[in-house]
Parts: sequence; structure tokens; C-alpha cells
Amino acid sequence: MLRVGVIGCGYWGPKLIRNFMTCSETELMWACDVDEKRLDKISSLYPGVQRTTQLDDLLADTGLDGVAIATPVNTHFPIAKACLISGKHVLVEKPLASSVQEGEELVQIARKNNLQIMCDHIFCYTGAVRKIKEVIQSATLGELLYFDSVRVNLGLFQPDVNVVWDLASHDISLVDYLVDEKPVLVSAHGVSHTNSNIENVAYLTLRYESPFIAHFHVNWLSPVKIRMTMIGGSEKMLVWNDIDEAEKIKIYDKGIKVKERDLEQRERLLVSYRSGDMHAPRVDRTEALALVVKEFADCILHKRPALTDGEAGLRVLRILEAADLSMKAGGSSAAINYA
Amino acid sequence: MLRVGVIGCGYWGPKLIRNFMTCSETELMWACDVDEKRLDKISSLYPGVQRTTQLDDLLADTGLDGVAIATPVNTHFPIAKACLISGKHVLVEKPLASSVQEGEELVQIARKNNLQIMCDHIFCYTGAVRKIKEVIQSATLGELLYFDSVRVNLGLFQPDVNVVWDLASHDISLVDYLVDEKPVLVSAHGVSHTNSNIENVAYLTLRYESPFIAHFHVNWLSPVKIRMTMIGGSEKMLVWNDIDEAEKIKIYDKGIKVKERDLEQRERLLVSYRSGDMHAPRVDRTEALALVVKEFADCILHKRPALTDGEAGLRVLRILEAADLSMKAGGSSAAINYA
Amino acid sequence: MLRVGVIGCGYWGPKLIRNFMTCSETELMWACDVDEKRLDKISSLYPGVQRTTQLDDLLADTGLDGVAIATPVNTHFPIAKACLISGKHVLVEKPLASSVQEGEELVQIARKNNLQIMCDHIFCYTGAVRKIKEVIQSATLGELLYFDSVRVNLGLFQPDVNVVWDLASHDISLVDYLVDEKPVLVSAHGVSHTNSNIENVAYLTLRYESPFIAHFHVNWLSPVKIRMTMIGGSEKMLVWNDIDEAEKIKIYDKGIKVKERDLEQRERLLVSYRSGDMHAPRVDRTEALALVVKEFADCILHKRPALTDGEAGLRVLRILEAADLSMKAGGSSAAINYA
Amino acid sequence: MLRVGVIGCGYWGPKLIRNFMTCSETELMWACDVDEKRLDKISSLYPGVQRTTQLDDLLADTGLDGVAIATPVNTHFPIAKACLISGKHVLVEKPLASSVQEGEELVQIARKNNLQIMCDHIFCYTGAVRKIKEVIQSATLGELLYFDSVRVNLGLFQPDVNVVWDLASHDISLVDYLVDEKPVLVSAHGVSHTNSNIENVAYLTLRYESPFIAHFHVNWLSPVKIRMTMIGGSEKMLVWNDIDEAEKIKIYDKGIKVKERDLEQRERLLVSYRSGDMHAPRVDRTEALALVVKEFADCILHKRPALTDGEAGLRVLRILEAADLSMKAGGSSAAINYA
Repeated sequence: MLRVGVIGCGYWGPKLIRNFMTCSETELMWACDVDEKRLDKISSLYPGVQRTTQLDDLLADTGLDGVAIATPVNTHFPIAKACLISGKHVLVEKPLASSVQEGEELVQIARKNNLQIMCDHIFCYTGAVRKIKEVIQSATLGELLYFDSVRVNLGLFQPDVNVVWDLASHDISLVDYLVDEKPVLVSAHGVSHTNSNIENVAYLTLRYESPFIAHFHVNWLSPVKIRMTMIGGSEKMLVWNDIDEAEKIKIYDKGIKVKERDLEQRERLLVSYRSGDMHAPRVDRTEALALVVKEFADCILHKRPALTDGEAGLRVLRILEAADLSMKAGGSSAAINYA
Repeated sequence: MLRVGVIGCGYWGPKLIRNFMTCSETELMWACDVDEKRLDKISSLYPGVQRTTQLDDLLADTGLDGVAIATPVNTHFPIAKACLISGKHVLVEKPLASSVQEGEELVQIARKNNLQIMCDHIFCYTGAVRKIKEVIQSATLGELLYFDSVRVNLGLFQPDVNVVWDLASHDISLVDYLVDEKPVLVSAHGVSHTNSNIENVAYLTLRYESPFIAHFHVNWLSPVKIRMTMIGGSEKMLVWNDIDEAEKIKIYDKGIKVKERDLEQRERLLVSYRSGDMHAPRVDRTEALALVVKEFADCILHKRPALTDGEAGLRVLRILEAADLSMKAGGSSAAINYA
Repeated sequence: MLRVGVIGCGYWGPKLIRNFMTCSETELMWACDVDEKRLDKISSLYPGVQRTTQLDDLLADTGLDGVAIATPVNTHFPIAKACLISGKHVLVEKPLASSVQEGEELVQIARKNNLQIMCDHIFCYTGAVRKIKEVIQSATLGELLYFDSVRVNLGLFQPDVNVVWDLASHDISLVDYLVDEKPVLVSAHGVSHTNSNIENVAYLTLRYESPFIAHFHVNWLSPVKIRMTMIGGSEKMLVWNDIDEAEKIKIYDKGIKVKERDLEQRERLLVSYRSGDMHAPRVDRTEALALVVKEFADCILHKRPALTDGEAGLRVLRILEAADLSMKAGGSSAAINYA
Repeated sequence: MLRVGVIGCGYWGPKLIRNFMTCSETELMWACDVDEKRLDKISSLYPGVQRTTQLDDLLADTGLDGVAIATPVNTHFPIAKACLISGKHVLVEKPLASSVQEGEELVQIARKNNLQIMCDHIFCYTGAVRKIKEVIQSATLGELLYFDSVRVNLGLFQPDVNVVWDLASHDISLVDYLVDEKPVLVSAHGVSHTNSNIENVAYLTLRYESPFIAHFHVNWLSPVKIRMTMIGGSEKMLVWNDIDEAEKIKIYDKGIKVKERDLEQRERLLVSYRSGDMHAPRVDRTEALALVVKEFADCILHKRPALTDGEAGLRVLRILEAADLSMKAGGSSAAINYA
């Protein structure tokens, strides 16, 4: 039984708490927040859990195995660092930290201290994405050609991070999880329609050594909510519409066959089209956060890297940071430094 | 009564012919194509129309007022030039020509000879776009913030033009028609999945002096057909789904109000959200090409520029050419040279 | 402050409890269920609420003002009767009772004892239905012509009630709430595909003195979930799609104009068609059950009939009972006895 | 080569003509209509086809093998009868005739004269329905449980037939084609909202010896167009949405398993639910009318009954006539007389 604490009880924290409560491998010891009112809510639901406004109380608890951090992004680093130094395994809400440098330091400290640091890339644990992973691994789609995602709605304007860090971080973690090849360049265009200079509409393009291309449209100012991802393959193509409760994933037996160019008919590109059935596999509905919590427990108990470990969180940060650079440079490609 | 001929009787030509036949201001004199079989089809439907495989027959017909050109893109220039020189008004299928240089020459010849040159930017004549123009002009949307278009399907791979010239040319002409401000930079990413080096997936971003941004996703390799445009405004937002036969245009009373930043609460961005009714105006269903044909006749008869005149066609070419440059340069921004 | 108890803590009871807890006019005193495990769950969430497996504990509590009953249908009558006799106001989950006779007795006892009996016709309290009521009352739709509802999905087969009592009871309560005219006949067809003789697919038609017609399709064996209601009016028509989160209600400016018959053109029916804009009003998202609970408190405090009082529950029972009769008679119309 | 004529050149006739022109087994000899203007249109398109306003011209043409009749319903009988008597095979637009008596006479005359009489039940020839037939025949759905169809829109009010004869005739022919068991009773409710007494909203229920049930909702006064059919089976269920161009047919691996009733737990119905993948087979897009025309030619050439022969047309009439009876009797079941 893993003894854990949750730091930050705003929006995401209570969900983590609920899942730690029902997970058979974890025991929730602490709820921590600077706001007593938030703690009151937790206490009314779970009177047995210790509460505190002082992070030090958790750091000092030598019986505590791990913590989950669900605080504002700019506090991820100091809190996670303190927890790691005091010997706690750490689960951090995405993104892992505010910069690559911070992320690297966290990963190093964790490695040195033999501790797990895991990033809560929540979508990687949904039934839809687990099914997509299975489909890709089974080579059903053939060679991957492109990954296109639209993640837009009238969204919460964040005060400290832009729409890329807020929304595209999800898509970046998904591409990282689903696609073996790693991007080398990122090009991003973003605009701000407030006087904050925080981008609220942005387009990201990831370029790879191969012709594979990934593109994300993220937007806090869309009148409609769209959560749609298309993955084109040489054999089949997949559409994931996360808003369609009944048929989240559709796999289309559609594509082209490129033939050798006929020498005598130079003008004609020899492409033939294929259009067949569509298949919508059943998608498991287990709450993703329940699996995140279980993965955190399992990776600690079995001393193995988590599915979305610190390295994964760090790769996402590298792309986010390069995207910011590119946006500031008007869309010029920025190299992703895997150093 | 305007006497016209149609050059090119493949896919688009027969539609032009049908509309010239039913237009009360035009009389169709000639059908011209290098392929006799195509002419046979025209003759069986319209035995009274003269047919020829020789462009010269039309050039020599001094009673002919105008021609419509629906041939492959790389033949637009020589054919249009010959027709203009022989004194015919010209309607050209989009895009106007293969390059800015060609387009400029055509516009100059037309001007010198006091002839109309008009480009068949078909979507500008649809009921949906005419309604959108009306909505924008009435200031219903407020200040325009962004224009986002997705135009994807399992499409015909063209042998001589890429997906940008084929599909994004529509969106470029629409932005040109709907938005007063003109873009200054274009950034484009495209990839080819055949051995032709002709891009079949591409993303274009248009940047303006203001924070307004336009973005187009065009794709010949999508398993699903999407024709969806979002126009964000400071007051309302509009979604045009061209595939939705019943409700093509939806106008959302949604948005944000940006407040003055509170000095004491620097961390908080003061944004309030507004969410109201949605309105789907009735959209006129007149065939767009009937209006194109009528506009061609009217601009000749009234000696006034066409709604989508040569200059409009030329502005589209400037952006297409810059987009090609940007794609070849890996997405670096290319200036749009308005000369 | 109204002191209330909840009887039955299965599916619906805990929702009632949560809403009584947050309602500013009620204080939850008791949770009652025959199953201790269910009570354990309630206790863990709300340790301050008294729990019991004995209805008598509530009956004996003279400080208790009212109870909400969320037990199986066939127990509604004895429990509600006992509560009314002991002087408690009563809120009953729909349907009010198992038969008209039971319902009449409950209403009589309540009236005699000056107590409220209210039926939890939940849909009447949703934002969508409140908006529809407003639209109908404003005469926007003109004269009502028909009401058509489809309420189907792969549903829970109930052991004691058929699909009509389970699902059509919602639609019957809606028609009762929204339409002034009351039906005089009901015709119902139902079939059972299990060996239980409990109908799982059924069609109900309500006939009125006027040509207005109401029809409901209810089905526990549908592969897709549909919750769609169309209300046709002489001026406009309304579609309520409860599954569409973004646009639940659409009002269409569509219809026909019936002209006087031309005597000379007897063969032609003179009807002209009208097709205009569509309007989707914003729908309030307050939880319906919160409003049910508030209505229960208010009708008691202000000594006025509830929006969905015992009489309304009784009218629904009259139609349900007639529908059962009609189904057993192979669809023959059964008179609705308002006695 | 079969020599044919088309009688009636209003809405459907020109479509028949176009298909007879392109069918390799037929040669179109005559176009016949009382309205010269309609014939002018045909002549402009097909100058080689003989035209006439006199049915007698066709009757007298001994070289003519067959005719297709696309005239108002109440003229089907006299025209078809005259054609059969003069030795022509006959294809009649649905419904076959205005009454069972007329239909029986036509079928008898055809049989006596060794001629084909075929009814144009167009939907039976669509790719969607042919695929559904294949799915049912392969026993994929298991035992059929119900057939539910909604066919509504703001439709053309017909002057001589009600919405049942106009729209439900399609559904009746489909059930006749797809389901082996034949219905024994029909119950129908219809109302008229004009002063014509012609029903414009109607609900039909077909009852069978088995618990299988079929139900149709037809409506000329719906603000939205719906063409949706659900077929429930004991193994799988099928939804046919004819308006969804991309995915017309969806087959759901969903259902219930009914278990033996547990004696000790009498109150509980033992049903378990199954929910699996969805499959949308590719649907052939051949124009249905091309296959109707081909079937007409083939059944004549091979002297075999047509897929939708006179008997099929007659079975549809029997149900339509019983439905009218039931509507006039307020929905009371009417026996279908297969005499």
C-alpha cells in the first residue's frame, strides 16, 4: 500500500484525491493547499485525511511514499524539487515544469535519488488513445503519413500560460506517445487578442526527418468545441472525435495506391483510390485518471519507468519551449534540442 | 445578348456551357476542346452550338464577345492571352494563371485593350458566402480576429498543381473577398506522400499588420470530407459548414470581454465570457455558377470591374506563389509582393 | 428551513440527497433504505445525516416536514400513504403510483390533510423544457399541430414496469405540462422480446378533440440513443434534441400556408411553403433536480400547488393505465377516464 | 434490345428516360405526355425520340415491347390496363394503382397475357437496401425483432394521395422486400391540418403473428428532413440513415442476452447487456433507377418475375388500403386481406 499526498486542491486536485481514495494500491494521507476553504471541502468528504496549508508537513512525513502536484504551472518546479529531495516519488500535472531547464533538473534529481517522477499526460490513459496505440502498433494504418489535431473551444483564458502550453501540450504528449519518430523542428504561429500578449489562438507544425507531419490547431476563442484528430496512414486512416460519445474512433479503409510513373504518360500522376468499410471499435470507458493513479503506484512498486515518465514530460517541454521561440520569431522553425 | 464560347469541355466546361445556355444575357456560340469525344457529348445535348478542336476558329470569329476558359492551369496563360489579343473578354477558371508574372501580363493586356478579365472564384458567388459577406459588412461580428478553414477529403491528385493551388486557392480568394485588410506574409508547410514532389497535405498561415490571422488546412488524403470555416469576431463568431445542407451558416453570440487589468491583481487576466443564442440564417440556393456567368455578362455590358476581376485573381496568385516559396523553404515566412 | 428525509438510496435517492444538502431552504434529516450498504455510502459522504432501515423512524419524527420517495414503483403507494397519514409532505419519483386508484387515494389523503403531494416529473424542470414552455406560451409556434417524441436506447430492462411506464411517462408528463388541451384517447402498441411479457418496445398515440396529435416511440432495445422531440406549429416548428449539448433547441421558421381552394383548379391543393432562418436559443443549465427540490420547498412554504403536483402525477397515471389497456387489446383506442 | 416508351414526363419520367437512354439493353422509342411543353424539353435533349400526346400512338406501335408509367396515381390503372391489353410489358411508378381491386385486375391481365408487370419500388434497388438485404440474409442480425422507420420533412402536399400513400408506401415495400414474415394487421393514425381531409402526418404499425413489429412515422410537416430506419435483431442491430452520405449503414454489435429466470429471484429479470464494435460497410452508389430499368429489361428478356413484380406492388396496396381503413376508424386494427 502506497501512502500518498495531494498538493493543490483546486480543479484537478480533488479528482486526484477521489481516485487515490478508490485505488486499491494507494492510501491517501494528506491534502495540502494554501486555501483553507478548499481543504474544508476535502475534509467534509474525507474526514479521515490529514489536511495542511504547509508543504513542510508532507516533506517531514517520512512515512509518505509519494505526492501528486496539481498546483499552478510556475510552482511545479519548486514543489516537485522539494518533494524529490525529501525522498518522495512525484506525479506532476502537465506540463512537467515551466521550462526545459527546470524539467531537466527534476529528472536528474529523481534519477540520482532513485525516485519516480511521472507526468500526468492524462489523454494517454483514455480508452480512445489506448485503442489508437493498439491500432498503430498492429500496423493496421500502415506507414504513418500525418497527424492533425484540432482542440478548440471558448476556453478559460489562463493568466500565466498561453494556449499552446495549455492545450497543445496534450497533443504534443499524444504524438510523443503514439509516434515512434521524434520531431526535429517546430514552427508555430500564435496571436493574442487581449492586451496580455498571451497567445489565445495558435497553430503548431512539427516536422520530422521523414515526410510525416504533425499539426495542431489550438484556440481559446472558438464558438464551437472541437476535439478531433486525424491520423493518416498508407493503409488506413483513423479519425478520433472525442466529443462523439457513441463512436469516438473511426477507422477508414480508404487511401491511395501510388503506382510507378508511366514513362509514356508523363503528365498523369498514377494514383488509384481505394474506398471501403469503416470500423468503429468499442472504446473502454475506464476513467483515465484512475489509470494514471494506478500507473503511478505500479511504477513505484515495480521500480520501472512510468508510461509517461519524466523523460516524456521533458520531451513535451522541449517542444513547448521551441514553439514559444518560433511564435516569437513569427513562425520561423525552431530546432528541438534533445541535447 | 453576349455571344460567348467555352474552351475546355472536361469537368468544368460542360457546367459553364449549361449555365451560358440558360443565362438570359448570353448566347453560346462555340464549344472548343482538343478531344472530339468531349465535343460529341456537348453536341448531343446542344446540337445548335458550333464545335471545334481549333482555338483559332474562336479567335477568328469577330462576332464573338467573350470566352470562358476551363482548361488545365498551365494553359490558362497562352489561351487567355490569345483571346484577349483577338479582342475577346475572358473568364478564367481559378487560378488565373500559373504565376504572378503571367497573371500580371494578362491583366495588363486586358486593361490596354479595354477588355474584361474575370476569374471564376466560384465560392464568392455561393449563397453561403454572400450571406457571410453581408454579416461581416453589417458589423455583426465586430472586429475580425481570425479566419480558420479546413478543406480536406480523399481528393483527386492533380498532376500539375499541388493541393495549395488546387484547394487553398479557394480559401485565399474567400479571405480576399471577405476581409478588407490584406495579408503581408505567408507561411506554409506542405508534404508529399507520392514520388511526384507535389504536396498533398499543406497548412498555410497568413499574417497581417494587425493581430488578425488566417489559416488553411488543405489535404487530399483525408478519410473524411470536411469543409468548415470559422470566423472569429470580437462580438460574434460564425461557423460555415458547407457540408451541412440544412444549416450551412451558424452565428454564435459568444465571446469574451477583455477588461482593464486590475493593478492589484496582476496575476489574474480579467476576461469575462459571454454565451448566448445561435442563429442560422437561411441561405440562398441559387447555383453559384449561374451567378458567375451573369456577373461575366453584366461586367461586360456595364463596363465595370467584375466582383472577382483580374486584380482579384492576381492577388490570389501572389499568395499562392509566396506559399510555394515558403513551403520550399520549410515554412519560413515569405513576403507577399503586391508590386 | 424545511426538514426533510429521503426514502430509497439506490440510483435516484443519492441525487435527491445531494440536492437537499445544497438547497438553502431544506435541511436533510434522514436517509432511509432497507440496504445498509447503501446507507454506508450516504454516511461516508454526509456523516451528520441520520440513517435508518426503518420507515417508522421517519414517520415517528414529528419534526420532519417532508419526505422524498425514490423506491421501486410498486412501493410508492404504501410508503407515500403512510407518510401522508403521519403528516409529512411528499415528493414521489415518477410515476406517482402503480395505478390510478392508488394515485387518487394519495391525492385525496393529501388534500384532506392539507399536505403537498408532488411528483418528480424531472424533465419539466430542465432548462430545455422551461425554454420550450416559454416559446409555446409566447405563441411563437402558432397553433400546435403535433408533438412527436423518440426516446430510445439500449436501456435497463425493468423487472416490474414496462417501457411505457419507464420512459413514456416522461413524455406524457411533458405533453401534460406543455399542451393545454388534454387527450381523450390513447392507442398503444407494445411488444416483448423476453419471456417476461413486459413490453420493451412501444408506440403510443394520444388523440385529442382537435386534430392535434401526440406520439411517442419508446424502446429499450435501440442500438443508438435518441432523445428527440418535434413540436409542429402553424407558424414555426421546434426540435429538441436533448443529446446535442451545444444546441438542444432549434426553432425553425418553416411551415405552410393553406389557401382557400380555387374552385376552378379542384385537383390542386393550394399550399405554399415557407422556409426561413433557424434560431437556437441559449438553454439554462441549472440542474433540474435542484429546481425540483426547490419547488418542493417553495410549494410547502407558500402553501400553493406544485408545478407538478399530485393532480399532474394522476393525469399521467390515467394515460399510462389506458395505454396498458390499449396494448393488451392490440392497439385499440382506450378512453382516458378523467372522472 | 428492348424497345420501350415512357408515359408521363413530369418529375419522374425524365429520370426514367435518361436511364432508358443509357441502359445497354433498352432503346427508348417514345415519350408521351399530355403537356407539349414537357415534351419540348425531352425533344431538346433527345431529338431522336418520338413524342406524342396520344397514348394510342404507343398502343398502336406493335414494335414496342414495354412502357414505363410515371403519371398521377389515379391514372395508373387505366393506362397500365390499356398497355397490357395491347401487349406491352409494364413498369409502373409506385404505388401500383389506386386500390387493391385495380391492382388485382392488372396482375391478372398481365398473367393471362404472359406479360410482365413490375412496380418501381425504387428504394429496393439502392445500394443501401441491397446491402441491408445481404446483411439480413447472412443472419448477421439474428432473429429480427423490430423495424422502425422515420420518413419526414417539409414535403410536397399531394392533391390526391395522403402522406401514407406518398411516403409510407416506400417503407411498406421495404419491409415487404426485407422481411420474410408478412404482416396480418395494420393500425394507423393520421391527421390532416389542411381543409382537404388528406392526412399529412401519420403513424403506421404493422403487427405480425410473431412479436416482430414494424412502425413508420411519415410527415409532410416536419421542419427537418429525417430518413432513418432501425432494424433490431437478436444478435446485432442496424441503423440506416439515408441522409448521411458518408456512412449510410451502421451495424452495431449490441444487444441483450435473456437468461432463464432464476426461481429464487423472481423479481429480477435476468438480462445481460452486450456492447461492442460498430461497422459501417461501404455502400454501392449505382443509381437505383438504372437498376430498376435493367431489372425491367432482364425480367422481360429472361421471362422471370421481377424483384418487385406486380404481386409485390399488390401486397403494398393491400397494406395501404388497410391503413386508410384503420385511419378512418381512429386507429383500430385492420386486417390485411391477402385473399
